[in-house]
Amino acid sequence: MNLSIAASTQNLSAETVFDLLMRVRQKSPRIHAITNAVAQTFTANTLLALGAVPSMTIAKEEVAGFAESADALLVNLGTLDESRREAIPVAIKAAKAAGRPVSIDPVFVNRSPVRCAFAKELMDFQPDLLRLNEAEMTALFPQRSDADAVISAGTVLAVTGVEDKIESQGEDFRLRNGHPLMARVTATGCAGGAVLAAFACVETDTALAAACGLSVFNIAGELAASRAGGPGSLVPELLDALYSITANDIEMRLKTA
Amino acid sequence: MNLSIAASTQNLSAETVFDLLMRVRQKSPRIHAITNAVAQTFTANTLLALGAVPSMTIAKEEVAGFAESADALLVNLGTLDESRREAIPVAIKAAKAAGRPVSIDPVFVNRSPVRCAFAKELMDFQPDLLRLNEAEMTALFPQRSDADAVISAGTVLAVTGVEDKIESQGEDFRLRNGHPLMARVTATGCAGGAVLAAFACVETDTALAAACGLSVFNIAGELAASRAGGPGSLVPELLDALYSITANDIEMRLKTA
Amino acid sequence: MNLSIAASTQNLSAETVFDLLMRVRQKSPRIHAITNAVAQTFTANTLLALGAVPSMTIAKEEVAGFAESADALLVNLGTLDESRREAIPVAIKAAKAAGRPVSIDPVFVNRSPVRCAFAKELMDFQPDLLRLNEAEMTALFPQRSDADAVISAGTVLAVTGVEDKIESQGEDFRLRNGHPLMARVTATGCAGGAVLAAFACVETDTALAAACGLSVFNIAGELAASRAGGPGSLVPELLDALYSITANDIEMRLKTA
Repeated sequence: MNLSIAASTQNLSAETVFDLLMRVRQKSPRIHAITNAVAQTFTANTLLALGAVPSMTIAKEEVAGFAESADALLVNLGTLDESRREAIPVAIKAAKAAGRPVSIDPVFVNRSPVRCAFAKELMDFQPDLLRLNEAEMTALFPQRSDADAVISAGTVLAVTGVEDKIESQGEDFRLRNGHPLMARVTATGCAGGAVLAAFACVETDTALAAACGLSVFNIAGELAASRAGGPGSLVPELLDALYSITANDIEMRLKTA
Repeated sequence: MNLSIAASTQNLSAETVFDLLMRVRQKSPRIHAITNAVAQTFTANTLLALGAVPSMTIAKEEVAGFAESADALLVNLGTLDESRREAIPVAIKAAKAAGRPVSIDPVFVNRSPVRCAFAKELMDFQPDLLRLNEAEMTALFPQRSDADAVISAGTVLAVTGVEDKIESQGEDFRLRNGHPLMARVTATGCAGGAVLAAFACVETDTALAAACGLSVFNIAGELAASRAGGPGSLVPELLDALYSITANDIEMRLKTA
Repeated sequence: MNLSIAASTQNLSAETVFDLLMRVRQKSPRIHAITNAVAQTFTANTLLALGAVPSMTIAKEEVAGFAESADALLVNLGTLDESRREAIPVAIKAAKAAGRPVSIDPVFVNRSPVRCAFAKELMDFQPDLLRLNEAEMTALFPQRSDADAVISAGTVLAVTGVEDKIESQGEDFRLRNGHPLMARVTATGCAGGAVLAAFACVETDTALAAACGLSVFNIAGELAASRAGGPGSLVPELLDALYSITANDIEMRLKTA
């Protein structure tokens, strides 16, 4: 057990994770998030608790201006209505033209062929980061070679689950933080995706940024679960933990595999 | 007092209520909820705390697929915009065709003639369950015979108030749980409607399912009110209570009339 | 210090603030709020905790009926999509025709020229109250004379910041309550705007109503910050504080400048 932890921390140290967190807190990047209706408030509060700034307009007349002036763009495909469908390519083009990192969270592409087709088209924009679970991974990339092609084009994949895997052209990461109670709160994954986008603003190695962001969010979730009486109190506890998480919290809890 | 409680529990026992709750927790049904913008997050978190799974897409291109693959459909008429207006009949048809229970919550039909007319048209689909308060009841069914006609067609009415009444072709129920502080939180009624929809997935006697679901939700509200410092902390407390409610909690608190 | 507080309380007494709060609690006014997607739930819960009643429909077919039957209309320009853009003038006309106070919160007009132009057109309706920060003020009124013209037409400006300024044709107010942690929660400003709208229902001197409403909300924020472990628990604490705030809380904390 000790040996495995020792091995696992070879490529991700608590110091690096905390260093990137401090850079987020100091830069206070603005993330423009086109996210689903259920996740909007929790995502905005997650970014604010982390030390970042959210903006969330979806209107197609306004979204380019918001996206190009932000430090990163997050696109989440939950509740993909017509307004979001129209706004997303406009926002991605504006963010890409301005050199901002673009992160996509293809929520529930495994439940909707229409949405899956839309997500596949977005791959042409070569997003910097894709955050998805195994079921969404299988729907979006039926063959392993499909995923490899996207990685070769420069996209980092953050595949979440009991064990999280970050896959990239460079270093890969295996991460094991988090708590089952987080799955009993809606949009925790979506809010976590916003944390990854914020970390991508302060570190050009997107795989490393994703690994650090995911670790911070999941450690905050563990701290919250240890204090919460259930999934209701987990939400305020998670935001409080994200706001006050320390180097020591990360040192004590970081688990790679 | 003791006599009245004894009488009231003749047709709804704490054992039955808890048995249905355990069936919800074991089955973990997915409820597709087309609900209002104010209620979405709380409704999703209520379903997750209960042990069910929410999905919430409204887009007309996607909603049929989500509705037919879910275990139940919930339609709530709050913030009834054009997208929701278009999606609702599509979703109901898909759910009905797949044999799923359909529950409708005609929020504020008493404040909007347009919405009331829309709700009346939905009666043609013969929903399994209608959840509404007295004012909405009066707007939707000006004559008692209008309500009776809907009940004869097979719809169960859950009329909420200080005393809740479940009316059906079969057995009726009178329920008295709940706490006034619940009315000081937005969308508690809407979230409660989702609980009823979840219970309708595990019990074909829809009136019994509604009576059990409403009792569980309102007892969780009482437990939460006894722990909360006001309407703000009632929300996390209610979700925590719903997550951890026990047979004993129900035994001690179930109040029928 | 004591002198400055003595001077500052000359034009706003704790008694007046609490008197207006009691009038809100007794009247329980309904506020129709067309507000942004991120702020809807928090705004509704803020109004309910205060003792007022929210309604939040945006659909253009329904919004006139909701606005004219409400006691006040609140228009917030965050997430200004096509539905909101269409509904807003319809709702303002209906509210104005019914003699209801209209309050506008031109969120982020400094980040979007399209939105700023839209907000400028709304000035023709002569809203009773504008709530905005310094950056939004500068975007909307590039010259001081532009702001003066709006004030001369009868609009009260509530300019929020470290020090809040209420400017009107009559008395002005300088207010200093609030806590930095409030800025780490999304939509606190938007929710506070709803409190001002509620106070405008019980006091025709809109500047005084705005000063009292802002003081109550910001004192509730201070009480919440003193009890919260971070921005997550600030939300339930703020709602609990708003629900239970006393004459003594206001007496002890009211700070004008």
